[in-house]
Amino acid sequence: MVFVGEAKMPEVKISVIEYNENSFKTSTFGQIEAVLRRVPAVLANGVTWLNIDGLHDIALIEQVGQHFGIDRLTLEDLLNTTQRPKLDDFESYVFLVVKVLNFNKTTMSLEIEQISFVLGKNFVLSFQELEGDTFNSVRQRLHKSGSLLRRRGADFLLYALLDTIVDNYFVITEALNEKIEDLEERLLYENNSVLINEIYALKKELGQLRKSIYPLREVIVTLDHNESQILSSDTKWFIRDIYDHTLQVIDHIDTFKDSAGTLLELYMSNISNKMNEVMKVLTVISTIFIPLTFIVGVYGMNFKNMPETEWEYGYFLILGLMVLAAVGMIYYFRRKKWL
Amino acid sequence: MVFVGEAKMPEVKISVIEYNENSFKTSTFGQIEAVLRRVPAVLANGVTWLNIDGLHDIALIEQVGQHFGIDRLTLEDLLNTTQRPKLDDFESYVFLVVKVLNFNKTTMSLEIEQISFVLGKNFVLSFQELEGDTFNSVRQRLHKSGSLLRRRGADFLLYALLDTIVDNYFVITEALNEKIEDLEERLLYENNSVLINEIYALKKELGQLRKSIYPLREVIVTLDHNESQILSSDTKWFIRDIYDHTLQVIDHIDTFKDSAGTLLELYMSNISNKMNEVMKVLTVISTIFIPLTFIVGVYGMNFKNMPETEWEYGYFLILGLMVLAAVGMIYYFRRKKWL
Amino acid sequence: MVFVGEAKMPEVKISVIEYNENSFKTSTFGQIEAVLRRVPAVLANGVTWLNIDGLHDIALIEQVGQHFGIDRLTLEDLLNTTQRPKLDDFESYVFLVVKVLNFNKTTMSLEIEQISFVLGKNFVLSFQELEGDTFNSVRQRLHKSGSLLRRRGADFLLYALLDTIVDNYFVITEALNEKIEDLEERLLYENNSVLINEIYALKKELGQLRKSIYPLREVIVTLDHNESQILSSDTKWFIRDIYDHTLQVIDHIDTFKDSAGTLLELYMSNISNKMNEVMKVLTVISTIFIPLTFIVGVYGMNFKNMPETEWEYGYFLILGLMVLAAVGMIYYFRRKKWL
Amino acid sequence: MVFVGEAKMPEVKISVIEYNENSFKTSTFGQIEAVLRRVPAVLANGVTWLNIDGLHDIALIEQVGQHFGIDRLTLEDLLNTTQRPKLDDFESYVFLVVKVLNFNKTTMSLEIEQISFVLGKNFVLSFQELEGDTFNSVRQRLHKSGSLLRRRGADFLLYALLDTIVDNYFVITEALNEKIEDLEERLLYENNSVLINEIYALKKELGQLRKSIYPLREVIVTLDHNESQILSSDTKWFIRDIYDHTLQVIDHIDTFKDSAGTLLELYMSNISNKMNEVMKVLTVISTIFIPLTFIVGVYGMNFKNMPETEWEYGYFLILGLMVLAAVGMIYYFRRKKWL
Amino acid sequence: MVFVGEAKMPEVKISVIEYNENSFKTSTFGQIEAVLRRVPAVLANGVTWLNIDGLHDIALIEQVGQHFGIDRLTLEDLLNTTQRPKLDDFESYVFLVVKVLNFNKTTMSLEIEQISFVLGKNFVLSFQELEGDTFNSVRQRLHKSGSLLRRRGADFLLYALLDTIVDNYFVITEALNEKIEDLEERLLYENNSVLINEIYALKKELGQLRKSIYPLREVIVTLDHNESQILSSDTKWFIRDIYDHTLQVIDHIDTFKDSAGTLLELYMSNISNKMNEVMKVLTVISTIFIPLTFIVGVYGMNFKNMPETEWEYGYFLILGLMVLAAVGMIYYFRRKKWL
Repeated sequence: MVFVGEAKMPEVKISVIEYNENSFKTSTFGQIEAVLRRVPAVLANGVTWLNIDGLHDIALIEQVGQHFGIDRLTLEDLLNTTQRPKLDDFESYVFLVVKVLNFNKTTMSLEIEQISFVLGKNFVLSFQELEGDTFNSVRQRLHKSGSLLRRRGADFLLYALLDTIVDNYFVITEALNEKIEDLEERLLYENNSVLINEIYALKKELGQLRKSIYPLREVIVTLDHNESQILSSDTKWFIRDIYDHTLQVIDHIDTFKDSAGTLLELYMSNISNKMNEVMKVLTVISTIFIPLTFIVGVYGMNFKNMPETEWEYGYFLILGLMVLAAVGMIYYFRRKKWL
Repeated sequence: MVFVGEAKMPEVKISVIEYNENSFKTSTFGQIEAVLRRVPAVLANGVTWLNIDGLHDIALIEQVGQHFGIDRLTLEDLLNTTQRPKLDDFESYVFLVVKVLNFNKTTMSLEIEQISFVLGKNFVLSFQELEGDTFNSVRQRLHKSGSLLRRRGADFLLYALLDTIVDNYFVITEALNEKIEDLEERLLYENNSVLINEIYALKKELGQLRKSIYPLREVIVTLDHNESQILSSDTKWFIRDIYDHTLQVIDHIDTFKDSAGTLLELYMSNISNKMNEVMKVLTVISTIFIPLTFIVGVYGMNFKNMPETEWEYGYFLILGLMVLAAVGMIYYFRRKKWL
Repeated sequence: MVFVGEAKMPEVKISVIEYNENSFKTSTFGQIEAVLRRVPAVLANGVTWLNIDGLHDIALIEQVGQHFGIDRLTLEDLLNTTQRPKLDDFESYVFLVVKVLNFNKTTMSLEIEQISFVLGKNFVLSFQELEGDTFNSVRQRLHKSGSLLRRRGADFLLYALLDTIVDNYFVITEALNEKIEDLEERLLYENNSVLINEIYALKKELGQLRKSIYPLREVIVTLDHNESQILSSDTKWFIRDIYDHTLQVIDHIDTFKDSAGTLLELYMSNISNKMNEVMKVLTVISTIFIPLTFIVGVYGMNFKNMPETEWEYGYFLILGLMVLAAVGMIYYFRRKKWL
Repeated sequence: MVFVGEAKMPEVKISVIEYNENSFKTSTFGQIEAVLRRVPAVLANGVTWLNIDGLHDIALIEQVGQHFGIDRLTLEDLLNTTQRPKLDDFESYVFLVVKVLNFNKTTMSLEIEQISFVLGKNFVLSFQELEGDTFNSVRQRLHKSGSLLRRRGADFLLYALLDTIVDNYFVITEALNEKIEDLEERLLYENNSVLINEIYALKKELGQLRKSIYPLREVIVTLDHNESQILSSDTKWFIRDIYDHTLQVIDHIDTFKDSAGTLLELYMSNISNKMNEVMKVLTVISTIFIPLTFIVGVYGMNFKNMPETEWEYGYFLILGLMVLAAVGMIYYFRRKKWL
Repeated sequence: MVFVGEAKMPEVKISVIEYNENSFKTSTFGQIEAVLRRVPAVLANGVTWLNIDGLHDIALIEQVGQHFGIDRLTLEDLLNTTQRPKLDDFESYVFLVVKVLNFNKTTMSLEIEQISFVLGKNFVLSFQELEGDTFNSVRQRLHKSGSLLRRRGADFLLYALLDTIVDNYFVITEALNEKIEDLEERLLYENNSVLINEIYALKKELGQLRKSIYPLREVIVTLDHNESQILSSDTKWFIRDIYDHTLQVIDHIDTFKDSAGTLLELYMSNISNKMNEVMKVLTVISTIFIPLTFIVGVYGMNFKNMPETEWEYGYFLILGLMVLAAVGMIYYFRRKKWL
């Protein structure tokens, strides 16, 4: 077994929450042995949620795996952070891989974290790459003794955790929506070639998003159709709600993809328009002055016999004629809407 | 429970219509308590239609929910106005979310309102974001004592309400069709860069339309396949009619999407044609005058020994030659169809 | 009930054909009452084909509907000429809406007419918007006493009518094929911007065609899978033949769509090529004459001390040099294939 | 019944091959009557393969049809050479239409021939538009007494014939592959506008190919799923082999379609690059000479008081300055990589 | 039977590995007869893996086929190296064709090798075009006596071999990813037309990849759904793991395809931007100097009566005016951001 990915935390952090309708206990551990001594694999009643932040300590993961009877294949999958979102239904537990997205506002880029869940009869194991505040809202709801979360089983806890993750996707789509509207705005007023690179970066982000979220649709359908006793039919109603939200996120991404395509078309038409404008300036200037320059060239010739040059007011006559010609051409361009 | 969306009305308005084949009563209430005292959750006979305009009063929605035995998930969904059209089939009722589209003629933009329906055995609850006249035609038909609507049950009322909404989509497609034909017309005669922004706006509107209407197809199929006793098989015939209309609207949107793509191509080819025309003017002017300017330059040189300048009619000869050259080039451009 | 569409005929025309293996009678009526008195709804033996040209007389349509026991929904659908091709399978009859296409050679445009059929146990009702010659070939085959059409029932008559309509689609695809080949030809020799509008018009026509014909595929599959006794299994073999033809027409339309896309690309590359050619002319002229004009400018300067101007043959020397330079540049452009 | 297509042969040719494991007899006939007298419709043992080249003799086709009990619809289909590849499963026989492709090397174009097969219990009828050598390899294998072909039934003969046709498709894809590689090569070195027409022709050929081959996939699936006793399960193994080959051909065509699209993009980018190059030449020449021409113009002015013109070496000074300016600009263009 | 492809090795190499939980033996042979004498077709216990490198010796392949009871069709397929990845499920064995990809770093191109597997009850036959090190890691794991591979059957060996091949695909996607990022980088800084050819080559490679890997998805699904006793349900869990990896590779290829499309758009917009820049230089130079050249032309005319030329400081006045005009125009271009 090897850890595939980069260790994003120096040390692994382990926290355990045990609760039932009446009691609630939360503890943090540095050593996995202490945890496993404390938490029996098969719990009499109540729900245990074991959360592990940081995946690079393979020995620790193996110990947890053996304690809870988790297949080696599952352990390999959760150690590989380049997984696709997926669901594996073993008989004694359900294994899920999902992606958490964060829009890092300092680097203005999308960060993707993989979270794996193991749902057993009355426990949930969650494995995160990073210590984060994604699940804080769930922890707060677990504190309240009368809450739905406290009254229901481990499957409902999994639902609550997944729901938090999917709700978080809407924050990302909101940020992307703003980014697209900002690009639109700037395409109207700016013309520089930085925009094409931003559009390209946007397209790449949408690609990452798609890879992280599209497979989730299938994962949740599989979860809904799961026939083991690990998921109660009550919870499935809630799972369907997550499904609706996932579809909505996918709708957004599809729309964004269309928009990105149209932004590119806007950009290309902007370049063409700009070139058209440049060409018009050149053409107007050339068309006015080239014929006039020809005329003055004519009277610069050194022929002996050029009657006009002998006229008293020849010079002024020619100047007048040239002014008339220039005015005529300007009028013509006006009519053609080039000026 | 939270209200997701913007409160589009200052106060919530509640109206109740109770009818059966023989009687019809309509009432408006300010307080939900009065309504619920009046309307028993399980009605002996006849149909009750409770319509609520404005969704920001969560307490009120909760009271209605408890009275009619509606699931908390359903209430959460109807309070979230960013829903995708969907149908949830609970055993005791059917929950539907659909989108109503309005083309605001003053702002020339598409407005989307979410309407949720709860269909029970003999009641229909409808929840609108805004007080509107969408359902006035249904109210008028309910007034007529002999009408089909009066003779049938709550499921037929739901059909009538959905039918009104889907028929309204045709008004939108009609407006978009005009918009597209107007853009086409202007693309033939105008050349300005405003058009690209209008095409872009059109594409965005089509995206919104698609998101609002495409999921409806599936919703109506699910409604048709519904096996509970809430929908009679007679009404299903009518539901299939709505299905046909939805398909027709989707056909229209698909066609519009194609048209928008082609409009963009027309626009791009217009820009190219325009640039071509500008280039031709420049080329014609340059090609005629640059050689002539060279010739007059030749006779402007100050060499001591330039025989032509000494000729009596040298000047006129050269002028004549230049006229011939110009005529020749104009003839050449004519033949090439550049003039 | 309302008529949706435009009345394309001043008066409604009604014709009735009654036939069995041995007898054949055709009659035309001005008044529907006379027809209905004559034609009992349930016929002992033989087949009755009632054809109505013109749909704007709602009262008439209602009378026919009542006489043959046709549902109100069906009547509403056949009065709406903006229907999508569809099939509704009522227990006592089958209702079909199809589109007839005509390529009007004077206006060079596609005309779409809606024809609705009601197939009962031993009658066929057909409702046309226009009096046309579409079904003349069927009438002629009905005249012949030994023909297959005479020996079979109403379902076979419906097959024959649908077959005529689908065969007619091939006339349209043939006309479009010619149009596309004509556009191709002209794109090679002409360069004007009318072509883009013709390509755009072609694309719109293909869109209409698609909307009229694609849904027919599903209609015919539904007809083939129909399990009522109205369609005999013998006739189904023939229906499958229509299905094959519909697929073939759809193949053609798909090919045309591809061709239209490529025509646009041809057009765009033509514009670019043309601009390239214009640019080359400008560049050749400028590149040859601008340096020469500079040289003659040099000897037009009025410096006191310019030795060359004093030379006996300075002028001729310079002329010779310029001819050489011009020849050199022409040679260079030849090698670059610009001339 | 009518023949749809063009008669590609002056006279119809009929050949019969009768064989079983032990005997083999081949005969050619001019008159169909002789054939039918000789070949009973229901054969005791052995396989009969009747091949007809040329389809324009309708009477002959009808006689064959009656003799072997073939449906009128089948006969109509095989007389129509514009059919889509298809399979009709009648109870007593299976009817197949496929397309044979030939790449005519003299006209460099694709020729499409339709071949229809009727597979009965122990006979195969094949109908070709043209007398060709497509099936010669099958005939040769039939000559060898111990061959698999001789040991198996009529269904295996059909497999062998289809296999020959599908194998022949690879010859076509090979030819197209060469054509595409040739176009690629020429796009790198040539720049003329003939290429766009060749790319367009290629796209049309790919369209024809697709129409001829895509439906075959479905035909072969249907043949494989055929449940009548006409096809033995042994032969089905072989049919699946043809299926794999068809998929491979379709893979090739899909790849070619992508390539054709990219060729077009290469062509367009070539045009743009070429125009860029032309523009650069114009710009370099203009940018160097236009300022110089201005300078010489300055000293061509006829002002009384122009000190520089009086200087002894003014002329040479100015010439030197202009050389410096020109060198400077050339250096600048070099740095910008325009030269 | 013929070998389709090119013989990539001079001589065929045969190696046999026999193992069970306790023993392990590896041998290499030059003659197939020796191998077959040694290896009985039906093995009592343990697993035999026979690997053949080089496919051009048809006689050898036939001997192996007869020995292990392999169908002639299978032999034909494995001799044809242009196969599509596929799975054929014969009752006594499963036949698989897959593609191994190698990125040759010296030629910078993709090399595709076909490997065929025959999985029997307790043997695996593998047929490679080339002697390679693809399976070395599997051989090493087989050496370790306690390994999972040694404890399981032939089906698990097949899994391990397939897993190695699919894992190798990630090396290719990694290489392609680098290639794309390198192209992106260079598109920002370089402008030459070599890039378009590299993008085109990339697209072709992606096409090959798609053809090699997409069909594998279906192959693995079929393997997973295989109901024969050759695959144990334990191994199927592992097969599903390969399936996940295949989907991941396909995700990558889809993303690359999108990226390649966008690279092309970047390239085209780069060309346009470059042309725009060239045009601006030309326009700025022309617009400044053409009017000035006109002015100096005016004072180069030879009219007798031109008052300005008589003024003491006329020359300096005109020079000053021209400097002002030039400065004004430069200011104007600055404001328009052209300079």
